[in-house]
Amino acid sequence: MKERITGKVEAVLIADTEDSFVTRSLPEAMLEYGGIRGDRHFGLTALADSRYKMYPRGTEIFNRRQISMVSVEECEGIAQALGLDEVKPEWLGANIVVSGCPSLTQLPMGTLFLFPSGAGMISNGENHPCVLPGRVIVEETGSDAILANKFVHVAKQRRGITGFVERTGVIRPGDTFEMLWG
Amino acid sequence: MKERITGKVEAVLIADTEDSFVTRSLPEAMLEYGGIRGDRHFGLTALADSRYKMYPRGTEIFNRRQISMVSVEECEGIAQALGLDEVKPEWLGANIVVSGCPSLTQLPMGTLFLFPSGAGMISNGENHPCVLPGRVIVEETGSDAILANKFVHVAKQRRGITGFVERTGVIRPGDTFEMLWG
Repeated sequence: MKERITGKVEAVLIADTEDSFVTRSLPEAMLEYGGIRGDRHFGLTALADSRYKMYPRGTEIFNRRQISMVSVEECEGIAQALGLDEVKPEWLGANIVVSGCPSLTQLPMGTLFLFPSGAGMISNGENHPCVLPGRVIVEETGSDAILANKFVHVAKQRRGITGFVERTGVIRPGDTFEMLWG
Repeated sequence: MKERITGKVEAVLIADTEDSFVTRSLPEAMLEYGGIRGDRHFGLTALADSRYKMYPRGTEIFNRRQISMVSVEECEGIAQALGLDEVKPEWLGANIVVSGCPSLTQLPMGTLFLFPSGAGMISNGENHPCVLPGRVIVEETGSDAILANKFVHVAKQRRGITGFVERTGVIRPGDTFEMLWG
């Protein structure tokens, strides 16, 4: 892999509240095959949903969306475009918040994220925005309901990525990590 | 996914001979999570080798190289460049031989191969050529030993791809399949 950027882990989070994809911060997280144990997206397999129109809905498939990652810079961009002070990564269901890679969402599919513990995550590419986090933003900020749809548009190419674990290991806020591709 | 090409499965093969990566044809093969059971590359995990210099050698990692796929057209190109009548996919350790996609090796990482049974494979991108299949070609064709090294050069960008199974299912020679990306 010829290309390399260094980034920093700002937060690690888990979605472990029933009926909600909103995440909460952890002091650290173990990346296992399948993601972060206890998180709603944890699992080596998942059921095909509307994002996988090439498979019958509900079919078991390998889970490439184990981890959701967003960047501080892109969240700021979304907030600005929505006229808000902030868009918290928690509201987007992010598991890892990073800084130092302003165009995280545009990194090519297959980019390796290599953490100091030796843990590795492979990017599955852009996490295409849907209206659900938009609704959380509306609720959390007391905004007009139309903002939920606006989110879907302004979050394109900056709502972060999903990925799957290539090598297990711990990740912690403050970790410096490498992004490798090409 | 916006881009789409149709291809045809010409052969399905397995490497199930001890101490050899050379494959042999099967009437059909079941793609399971981990690849083709009994094949030397089968497994949800594998040990990091020289292709994974970012991890300590021998570390357990998720196996993205479950399946090796080559195209008829690219094998012909390699043979021509080597001045040979043919380069058999078996000699390259291919599990799936396809036609209809002359630039298979250059399809982007993350390309989905969708077979009529519903089976799906995700491309891990180019299978970078090493000298070992070159040595098999030398042996099989009675060529000068230098051809093994020449293979490494001429097979760049046409030695096929590796990939991992996203959805299980049978594949058979004669299957028409879709390649989807973008």
